[in-house]
Amino acid sequence: MTRDEALALDAADALAPLREQFSLPPGLIYLDGNSLGVLPKATAARVQQVVQQEWGVDLIRSWNTAGWIDLPQRVGDKIARLVGAGPGELVVADSTSVNLFKVLSAALSMAQADTPKRKRIVSERSNFPTDLYIAESLARERGHELVLVEADELPAALDEHCAVLMLTHVNYRSGRMHDMAALSRMAADAGALTVWDLAHSAGAVPVDLHTDGADFAIGCGYKYLNGGPGAPAFVWAHPRHAERFWQPLAGWMGHAAPFEFTPGYRPAPGISRYLCGTPAVLSLAALECGVDTVLAAEPLGGMAALRRKSLALTRLFADQVQASCPSLTLVSPRDDAQRGSQVCLSHPQVAYPVVQALIGRSVIGDFRAGDTSHPAGAVDILRFGFTPLYLRFVDAWDAAEQLRQVLESGEWQRPEFNQRQAVT
Amino acid sequence: MTRDEALALDAADALAPLREQFSLPPGLIYLDGNSLGVLPKATAARVQQVVQQEWGVDLIRSWNTAGWIDLPQRVGDKIARLVGAGPGELVVADSTSVNLFKVLSAALSMAQADTPKRKRIVSERSNFPTDLYIAESLARERGHELVLVEADELPAALDEHCAVLMLTHVNYRSGRMHDMAALSRMAADAGALTVWDLAHSAGAVPVDLHTDGADFAIGCGYKYLNGGPGAPAFVWAHPRHAERFWQPLAGWMGHAAPFEFTPGYRPAPGISRYLCGTPAVLSLAALECGVDTVLAAEPLGGMAALRRKSLALTRLFADQVQASCPSLTLVSPRDDAQRGSQVCLSHPQVAYPVVQALIGRSVIGDFRAGDTSHPAGAVDILRFGFTPLYLRFVDAWDAAEQLRQVLESGEWQRPEFNQRQAVT
Repeated sequence: MTRDEALALDAADALAPLREQFSLPPGLIYLDGNSLGVLPKATAARVQQVVQQEWGVDLIRSWNTAGWIDLPQRVGDKIARLVGAGPGELVVADSTSVNLFKVLSAALSMAQADTPKRKRIVSERSNFPTDLYIAESLARERGHELVLVEADELPAALDEHCAVLMLTHVNYRSGRMHDMAALSRMAADAGALTVWDLAHSAGAVPVDLHTDGADFAIGCGYKYLNGGPGAPAFVWAHPRHAERFWQPLAGWMGHAAPFEFTPGYRPAPGISRYLCGTPAVLSLAALECGVDTVLAAEPLGGMAALRRKSLALTRLFADQVQASCPSLTLVSPRDDAQRGSQVCLSHPQVAYPVVQALIGRSVIGDFRAGDTSHPAGAVDILRFGFTPLYLRFVDAWDAAEQLRQVLESGEWQRPEFNQRQAVT
Repeated sequence: MTRDEALALDAADALAPLREQFSLPPGLIYLDGNSLGVLPKATAARVQQVVQQEWGVDLIRSWNTAGWIDLPQRVGDKIARLVGAGPGELVVADSTSVNLFKVLSAALSMAQADTPKRKRIVSERSNFPTDLYIAESLARERGHELVLVEADELPAALDEHCAVLMLTHVNYRSGRMHDMAALSRMAADAGALTVWDLAHSAGAVPVDLHTDGADFAIGCGYKYLNGGPGAPAFVWAHPRHAERFWQPLAGWMGHAAPFEFTPGYRPAPGISRYLCGTPAVLSLAALECGVDTVLAAEPLGGMAALRRKSLALTRLFADQVQASCPSLTLVSPRDDAQRGSQVCLSHPQVAYPVVQALIGRSVIGDFRAGDTSHPAGAVDILRFGFTPLYLRFVDAWDAAEQLRQVLESGEWQRPEFNQRQAVT
């Protein structure tokens, strides 16, 4: 493909106007929306309104007058539309890690009540570490076992010992997307519950929790939902499960009547019992602006249209790189059905400095170190997230061209690109 | 006292200039800083800097360049100076409820390891409900018992069955302050650990966690620390305990090397293992501005000077009310040593509409319903928090005078003051 052909794709792109919602630094090609989404233009003013008017002037009254108290449900209902959940089924709260703790606890309690002999949490070895840490911790506390397998070994692990299948829908490293419907069905057939982490899915790929037969889900606010650094996360439970158990983080915001200040815990009906402490209002208000940028695609075809563009972007980038950068190996699946909204490449030696040199050319991706304890994950990764809301086809073309130039010029050898930073 | 005498106290008040740090709505007397502290002037600009520059322009690089990754420790070190903790001993994270879950879990694990027969968590019946809910939940999960007693029954409850004494230092309803040193010593003598909730203490009264012999502490960012609605909370563990146990919310930010993305959980050294998910950066940045307003008192005598002013304010208000409002009963202790930074009054019938009528006169306090399940807490409360950083003596005098006028005029009988709102 030529650069002009990429420009022609942009000219014909019905979703192109969505880019105007964002405050994008000029000249930057930002391929890290899967780590931190960019700033929506509406956010700064909205956050100022919350700070200066709602907090500064109206103060404590804003819990009522500005609806702070309903923010977790209001923003939750908006996210629900992006993941195939119904109104009142999903709330925004806490972090992804904390929410995983809640739903995995609830799922293990359910399994314990129904099938006490099942003692395994099954997950993918290359699942995002915080998910594995939380599961490891709960398994240790409750006498369960965390069983980690490769993706293609998952079906065989869904046996009579499996209590819960816990997966991240789109793998953070490889960009490989699980078939949620097929795995949820297999888990259900085996008598196990499913917990899905939608961190790299919500706002990036279509998700249909009800149709796909999920039991519990959590997700992240600061990636494809553009909620800002450390935005609160979300949590969903299938309505048939939501009221079956307490989750152990039984804080006052999940109480049936938090402002009655009664000493005994009485969980709120439905998903609201998955709230815990007081919500971080500033961060939550910013998240709402981010979610609104995704909902703005609804009149243009919504998540299905965003998905078509995302696949076209990642295909374009992967094709260009494979044609022009022979030293790089495509790690993400070529098959559209298995690829999330990112492209991961590996290089046996110089992935880190190549990513740094690209950043020096204002193309932002990120580096993920290989994990030598894990054969399938041992290789260092160059990771590029493609957010169809604000990326153009020409950005994908230019990014591939810059990558080619970085490799051919050898500029990645410069010392400044080879100094590791604390966070990458 | 006359109004002129109150004005004279303000004229002589060395702390008076600290009020200039805040954006106070004109004409408002805000006696609800124990629910939501007011907006510091520095906050709006700082939050905008985070949104527009650090997030909007620098994007993901700000984890390094803007030091987002160190915010929990950096702000934690500042709060540590207010509560008698050392650098590196306290971090900001999550909500108060979630942090209580972490430290109470750790304390119960320690007790289980050292003295497995101790099965009781002892607390005060009128402790803040979310604390009781979290304790109830953990007790249920671990086969412990939550034993609730009145404040004066606490010493007797510290026996060979007590694993953990869990108290809020200053009671949210009554304003009564426990003697942290005496109770911690009694608990230690009885072989129990202490968990202190500093929600109504940090920034309000002097706290000296080390000298007073506390084992664990948590606290709130949005009350006297002026961090904004739902600001993240803090957590402290005595250094001798910090590394003894995992806390169960074993998220990646509490890992020894979060960005190595290794599959097995290895807790960070010290208090950093009490971090869990990604911190809410916008809310954390606002919290730092709030904490700075309290630290600004350090050259003027710090928490000791703030405490002297706080006691003088609450004494003035209580004296004036008792002299002019015979239908109100003082619920807060008269004894300075037992009174936090608030004054609570009770009225047998009309506490709610009186608070609403006061709000109609721009004097903001709050109402706390009586809990009929609990004899000592059955009465409805008018609650007034006094933040010495921004309140003047004339505010305390005027508030008492407005309260007298509301009661004498009978304006609290108006229908609009008698409609209950969801959050009060």
